[in-house]
Formats: sequence, structure tokens, C-alpha cells
Amino acid sequence: MSSPEPAAAKAVNIDSQLPEGRVFSVPTMCMIAFVIGLVASFGAVVFRYLISFVHNLLYYGTISFEYDANQFGDPSPFGIFIILAPVIGGLIVVFLVKTFAPEAKGHGVPEVMFAIYHKNGDVRGIVAVVKSLASAISIGSGASVGREGPIIQIGASFGSSIARMLNLVRWQKITLLSAGAGAGIAATFNTPLGGVLFAVEMLLPEVSNRTFLPVVVATATATYAGRIAFGLDPAFLVPIANIDVHEAIDPVQLVFFAILGVLAGIVSWAFIRVLAKCEDIFPALPGNDYTQNIIGMLIIGTLSYVFFTTTGQYHTAGVGYATIQDILNGTPYTFILLGCLLVAKVFATSVSLGAGASGGVFSPSLFIGATLGGLVGVAGAYIFPDHGFMAAEFALVGMGALVGGATGASMTAIVMIFEMTRDYNVIVPLVLAVAVAVGVRRWLIQDNIYTIKLRNRGKPIPTNRHTNMYLVRPATELMATNFKVLPQDMPVRDALEAVAQDGSEHVIVADGSRIAGFVRFGTVPYLADRISGQTLKDL
Amino acid sequence: MSSPEPAAAKAVNIDSQLPEGRVFSVPTMCMIAFVIGLVASFGAVVFRYLISFVHNLLYYGTISFEYDANQFGDPSPFGIFIILAPVIGGLIVVFLVKTFAPEAKGHGVPEVMFAIYHKNGDVRGIVAVVKSLASAISIGSGASVGREGPIIQIGASFGSSIARMLNLVRWQKITLLSAGAGAGIAATFNTPLGGVLFAVEMLLPEVSNRTFLPVVVATATATYAGRIAFGLDPAFLVPIANIDVHEAIDPVQLVFFAILGVLAGIVSWAFIRVLAKCEDIFPALPGNDYTQNIIGMLIIGTLSYVFFTTTGQYHTAGVGYATIQDILNGTPYTFILLGCLLVAKVFATSVSLGAGASGGVFSPSLFIGATLGGLVGVAGAYIFPDHGFMAAEFALVGMGALVGGATGASMTAIVMIFEMTRDYNVIVPLVLAVAVAVGVRRWLIQDNIYTIKLRNRGKPIPTNRHTNMYLVRPATELMATNFKVLPQDMPVRDALEAVAQDGSEHVIVADGSRIAGFVRFGTVPYLADRISGQTLKDL
Repeated sequence: MSSPEPAAAKAVNIDSQLPEGRVFSVPTMCMIAFVIGLVASFGAVVFRYLISFVHNLLYYGTISFEYDANQFGDPSPFGIFIILAPVIGGLIVVFLVKTFAPEAKGHGVPEVMFAIYHKNGDVRGIVAVVKSLASAISIGSGASVGREGPIIQIGASFGSSIARMLNLVRWQKITLLSAGAGAGIAATFNTPLGGVLFAVEMLLPEVSNRTFLPVVVATATATYAGRIAFGLDPAFLVPIANIDVHEAIDPVQLVFFAILGVLAGIVSWAFIRVLAKCEDIFPALPGNDYTQNIIGMLIIGTLSYVFFTTTGQYHTAGVGYATIQDILNGTPYTFILLGCLLVAKVFATSVSLGAGASGGVFSPSLFIGATLGGLVGVAGAYIFPDHGFMAAEFALVGMGALVGGATGASMTAIVMIFEMTRDYNVIVPLVLAVAVAVGVRRWLIQDNIYTIKLRNRGKPIPTNRHTNMYLVRPATELMATNFKVLPQDMPVRDALEAVAQDGSEHVIVADGSRIAGFVRFGTVPYLADRISGQTLKDL
Repeated sequence: MSSPEPAAAKAVNIDSQLPEGRVFSVPTMCMIAFVIGLVASFGAVVFRYLISFVHNLLYYGTISFEYDANQFGDPSPFGIFIILAPVIGGLIVVFLVKTFAPEAKGHGVPEVMFAIYHKNGDVRGIVAVVKSLASAISIGSGASVGREGPIIQIGASFGSSIARMLNLVRWQKITLLSAGAGAGIAATFNTPLGGVLFAVEMLLPEVSNRTFLPVVVATATATYAGRIAFGLDPAFLVPIANIDVHEAIDPVQLVFFAILGVLAGIVSWAFIRVLAKCEDIFPALPGNDYTQNIIGMLIIGTLSYVFFTTTGQYHTAGVGYATIQDILNGTPYTFILLGCLLVAKVFATSVSLGAGASGGVFSPSLFIGATLGGLVGVAGAYIFPDHGFMAAEFALVGMGALVGGATGASMTAIVMIFEMTRDYNVIVPLVLAVAVAVGVRRWLIQDNIYTIKLRNRGKPIPTNRHTNMYLVRPATELMATNFKVLPQDMPVRDALEAVAQDGSEHVIVADGSRIAGFVRFGTVPYLADRISGQTLKDL
């Protein structure tokens, strides 16, 4: 009844040089994904409670699992000594990470991408445990990091570990890994579509029926389980979402939303650069991992204490949702305070991660975007007082634009922000600002906040996805002239020149009349400096 | 500041054998996309008015542009003679299509896909005009077809024509074509994300910054313009969307939603098969295009008149939104009536398109899905009266499941249904049912309702999308053993066997020691029967 899947042939190809593994049918994979969805949502619940526990212990000296990150907390009874909370937390984090799982350092998503593209989809089971603990301590103790990166890595660890237990082939392992990651996001944020789209845009190397359906099943399951645990409310309750709008948006506002997109692209670029810089600077400081961490965490603690003494809130500590919620509630923030918060959060998150904290960049992106959007909204209301500018609306759009700009995952950014706020009124400005922000950021720097880390390690991953046009072209067209036969002892440098001359992309490496190999030159530019002295045979 | 895009190399590759064309930067493309968005939304407005005009003329003998497809119309004063309306309309449609643009026959999306993959992205400008007229007459006169396929083809024609005027290279032409298509959907349904996702899932061969951003800009522009023309309301106003839900959904209901997914997969398969069958049967009937059309349209007219005499409404005529809206309003429909509507709509749409009507299959899919969902909801309420089953909720989920099953575009189906109804309460059941429906349908038949037409023509297009894992693998891995060197006079039959034995996918065709060509065997299975007698040299 059904013709053979052309995809099946590709799978053989991808996996042909790897040890054999089992291949399950799509329905079986969906059943496994169902279990992964349950496990990942359980992991999300445990992780949220761990954060609460650490936060209450270090900030208030109490043993309690009650903590609503969307509300500002009371002042800590420890006064200025609260500066030491991130330092104490940081030392434990560094010890945990160094001792048990180095891959639990950092913000999570790059490590998962690295595992997909360069480690056959293997994420160790211990990562789930160490990452949960380390990130809970980092976030709870006040480092300026988010909880989505960790939950992605934790979910990925579940998915990958279950796949390894079942001895699945690589592409099915990667599918379950992505399913676990998507499920983790969906459970913790109550964003089923956002979870699916994140897996599709950022993780899955192949998007097709056989990879997509397990991801969807895991994500839907985790959302359902997460709703039972956390309730049905969106991540942010936004009063403006309930306004009944009857007119298309004011064109002047639309221009400001476009400007917000441009600014978000620039700020995303700055965030990516500052973060990468801090990740270089801290390991180069004198001393060891512990002393480097102490320096960073003292800065973080001081910064949030300065905000406490000036504004009454520890704005830059932890996930920062209380500040975001406050802005979305429509609480008036001054232009100056929003600007300070923006700059401080970029700095605090970069320092936290540079100094070795464990946590994500998504929540900080939301924070930075909300403050940037608020700035633009306040400016708009000041310049055009009669055009109905609402800072909260701009903040919401700014969150999406910054997430889009920083991660490059446009659809994820748009849909996640909608799902986190359930405000469909701003969908057109949101789509517009995200598109502009992604465009501007990519014009400034190709890598996103996840892939830059991998490129700096010399392990880039692809950023585009495309159907293979070759599959449908007549075979005569395929016998193309765009490959060259080159002797195997030709240096790569010369080969690159020969290739550049006539635009061919594939090279057949010949050993006399025998064919010794086949190089696709799309690969080479990434590594060109390192390998240009080698001969093709060495490749 | 930014590294060179690896995508650029691919573009050269894709286009290397084609005549040169201009390449515009992404910002320039976005500005062109802005214009296309405006043009496409203007086209959507004109198209809607044309449908209204034809409908009022043929059903009521009045000259008027007032028509709300979501409300049941009054009985036609023509009584039984209304059976002739689709016949009269059909004859004009056949004349228009035959005389001016054969590619305007049928449901639109396959023709656009064909243009993308096999005609360098060329959709003629005349198609926009002929398709608008022909589809407006088909829909207005009562053929059982939808208005989304036409608007996609009309938008694609705008995009492609503008690209040709500017002499753009192929991939940029395809990008603007997709932008026009997405913009058309977005404008007519007020679904910005659905429009983007449709272009991404169904049209764009490559999804990346440079192709995605123009699509987003066109779609957002068209949505904005469409909202000014048609208002801000969603396509369907759904009372249940406003219910404030505080508990995760009843597990018994969830099981029924999964069953609905399975049934939707089966019904999608049946719809695809019946439609394909009708498209074969009618052209084989005795007589010419006109007489074949008369036969089909008499059946259509009679069927909708039978529904009128028994239920008071012409349920199967036109886009069918009034029936869908009625079911979503919660109007009680009997199990029997829903079943009759389901079967009748599958039949009516297949006959309409088989007989040569011009119009889409998306609205019929919504109709079929709503009746199927209603059936399951009514059954559930009957079996488990205390579990809060609502037929309208199941109808809504059924719409998504059927669209997903029929088109294979899962994310588009989920997001479109949300955007058309703004009901986020059912998101988890919707995601679940769509995933199950797509899985079941693909297990029954690989092709979706669009691609089956192309496969039957011997012009298949790819159904999966994947990042190219090769780009990131070390070159040593690339020098793989998964290609074979075969002599050029070997018959393809033998070559396929040799390839099948060891799972290699690429074949280097050798003429003695010279390399004569390169065949990727992913291509061949599609055409295997036709070419297996040829030698590799012939390829």
C-alpha cells in the first residue's frame, strides 16, 4: 500500500559506518517517546523543587520547597552577606561539575548540539543528575542564569540514555534525545508547540515523519503531565492579553516595533559577543576554577545587592521572572532603570556563565528583551503620547525578538512567547520584530548564542536545513560537471584553489586510476586554516 | 564581522546549471517581500469579493458583493433549478482553464509544488487572473471546493512573476513564490503563523535565514493588510474558546482524542484515494472536458439539493464554512447526519475536482474533520455521559487532525487550527490527534493529498527535510565506502542490485579509468521500473 520511504535509504547512509543498532518502527518509537515524556516532566518537577529548596536555604535560611519565581521575594535577613550566596553556591557547582560531569558546565544547549553532531547523540545519564543539582544550586544561589538550558540537557540525557539502553541506531537515539529535550521545555513552561519547534529548529538534523512524531508525542505527554503538576496557567499571566482589540495596530506603533526588532538584533549580537568574551576571559584569570568562580560570583552577588539597595529588589539574581512579570503587569519603570537592568543582565549572565555557573541563557534573553522592549515602549509613549503605546506590549514583543535574535530559532521564539503569555493580540508585531531581529543579528554575526561556543571549539554545526533537491532531478542532470578529479597527493590548499576556480563542490580523490575517496568541499571552509597544508590523501 | 554563509556554496551548486540571474541581499528580498505581501492581500480581497459576486448571482439572481460564508444562506428562489448552478459555473470554468491556463485546473498546491521542483519556480502571471476567476466561479456556483488552494496559487503567481520581472536566480524566485503563497493564506484566514508554516513545511526546499525572512515579512504584511480589509476576528468564532479551564483534560477524553487521531488518519487516506480515483475516472469518461464536467456538476448540484430538501441547508456546496461554524457553535447534530455529511463531502469534493472544478482541498478537509470529530464527540458523550464530552471541541480537533493527515503538514495544521479558532484550551488534544493522524495516514500511504497527484504524473517531490550531516563530519569519514564504482555499460537493473547488496547510495560511473558520471541512488527508486533496462551510461 505504501511505497518505500526514500528516507530509509538516507538512514542507512548516515549510519553505514557506525556499529549496528536496533531500528524500531515509528509506533514503537512513539511509545518510547511517551515514557520519555513522562520521565522528562518528572525531571522538570524535581528540578523546579530543587531550585526552590536551594533558594530558600541560601536566601532565607529556611527549609522549604515553596517558591514562586514570578513574584519578588522578601528581602533576605542576611543583609549584605547575601553577596556570599552565589559564591557558596558556585563553589559547590564547580566541585560537582569538575568531579562528576564536565559537560554539565555552561548553558546546556551547545552541549546537547555537540552530542548530536559530534558524539553520535550520546548524552550520559549522570549528566541529568549533575546538571539538575548544579543548575539548581546556581539558579537558587543567585547566579544570573535560566532554567530552560538545564532542563533541555536533562531531558536530552533521559532520551539518549533510554535509547542507549535499547541499543538504538544513531538517528533514533538523536530522535529520542530531541524528544526528551522538547518534553523538558514543554513541561516546565507549559508550551507544547514551543517544545516541538525547539526540537525541530535547533536539534533534529532531519525533520520527517519518523523523527517528528516521537518528538510530538513526548512533548504532548510532558505538557499534560506538567499541567497536572504545575497547573494550566501560562508561564506569565499578562493582563494586556485579555484586552479585546478591534482595530489593526497603529502604524506608528508598527514602525516602533520594527525599530525594536533592529535594536533586539543589535543587543542579541552584543549579548553573544560579551558572553563569548567572558567565557574566554575567566578561564584565563590567574588561579584555578574555584578562584575564578569566586571572582565572578562576588561580582554577581554585589551587582544584585546594589540593585536591592537602590530599587528594593535583587533584579539580576536567578531567572529574573519576577522582574519580567512586573514589567508585563504594566508597572511603570523609568527609562533609566530599564536601561540599567538591560546592561546589567547582559553583563551578569555573561559573568555567571564565564565564571562557571550552570544554567541557561533563555530566561536571561527574556529579561533582556523585556527591558529593551520596555525602553522602546516608554520612548514611543514619550514621543507619540496619543498613539496608545503600552510598555508591557513592547516588552512582550521584545522578549520574542531577543530570544529569536540570540538563538536564531524564529518560529520557536514567536510561538514560545505566545504560549508563555497567551497574548495573541500582538502576533503581527511579534512576527515582524522577531524576523527583523534574526535578520539583523545574522547580518552582524552568523553564529547564534549556542553555536558560537561550538565554532570557537572548532566543532561547528550546520545552521540551515533543506530538502535535497537532487532527489527529484533527472539522473542526467545529476551527472554534473560540478565535481573534479584530483590526485590524492595534491595539497588541500591547491585543491581549494582548483575548486574555487570553477565553482565545483565535490572532489573525487584519485590514487592513479583507483578512486581513493570523495570529498565534499562544503566541509572544508570551516577548518581551512588548519588543514590547508595537508594533502587530499591525509583527509 | 560575519563569516561567509555556508549556504552560499550550496546555492551555487543548486543553480550551477541554470542561466545566470541576479541575486539580491536579504534586506532587499525583504523589501520585495513587503510589496508581495501587499499585492497578495489585495488579491485575497478581490478573490473573496469575486466569490461573493458569483454566489449571489447564481444562487439568488442578485448583483451583490455581500456574503458571509460562515452563515447559512437563505434558500435559493430557483428551487430545484439550483442543481444547474454548478453546471453553468462549471462550463465557464472549463472554458477559462482550457483556453487561458491549463495549470489553473485542480486544487492549486500540487501545481505550485510542481513549479518549484520541476519548472524552476515559474508560475505564470496569467495564472493569478484565470485562477481567481475560475475558482471564484467554481466556489460561488456550488462546487465542493475551498478557497485556500486558489489563493496559494494566486499568491505564488504574484511572487514568481515579480521575481521573473527582476530576473532573480532560481532559489530567490522560489523564495518569493513561497512568500506570495504564505501571504495569500495569511491574508485570507488571518493566520500569520499558519501562512509562514505552510510555506516552510510544504513549499520552501531550503529553510534558512535567507529564505525564511522574506516569507515572514510577506506574511506579516499580508496579515496586517488583511486585518484592515476583513477585520481582526478569527476565521471561526468559537464559543468554547472562551471557557476558562482550570483542570487538565479528562483522561477518558484524551483516549477518545487519540482514537479521533487514528480515525482521522484513516479518513485522510480514504479522501486521498477517492480524490485520486475521481481524478482518473472523469477524464476517462466518454465525451470531452465539457460533458465530463456536466456529469460531475449535476451530481454535485443534486447532492447539495438533496441535503437542502432533507436538512434545509446546501451543506456540501462551496467552502462549507457555515456547516463547520454551526458544529463549532455547539448546535446538536445527530450521529447519522454527521456521518452522511462526512461521506458526502469526501465524495462531493472528489467529484468536483475530478470533473474539472477549480478550488482547494483545505476547506473540504476542515469540513470532513469537523464532522468526523463531531461523530467521535457524540459517541463519547453517549458512552461516557459524565466525562464532559463536547462535540464542538472534538470537531475542532478533528479539523486539525484531518488537515494534518491529508496534507502531512503537522505544525501548519496545529497552528492554523489554533489561529482560525483562537482556542488554546484544546492544544494538547490537538497536538496529539494531529500527530497520530499524520502517523496513521503515512503508514497507510506515503503521499499526501498534494504530492500524490505529482507522483501519479511521474514527477514526485521530496517529503522530508534534513540538515546535511556531511557538512560537519570530519573529511576522513566522508571518504566513505558507501559509494561504488561501476562500469558505464552496466544495466541499471544490475547496478541497483549491486547497490542493494551493500547499502551504498552513490555510484561513480566509470568509462574505463575515466569518471563518466555520478549517480545518487536515492533518485532511482521512483522511476525504477521505467529505467531498469537502461545502462548507467544512458542515465
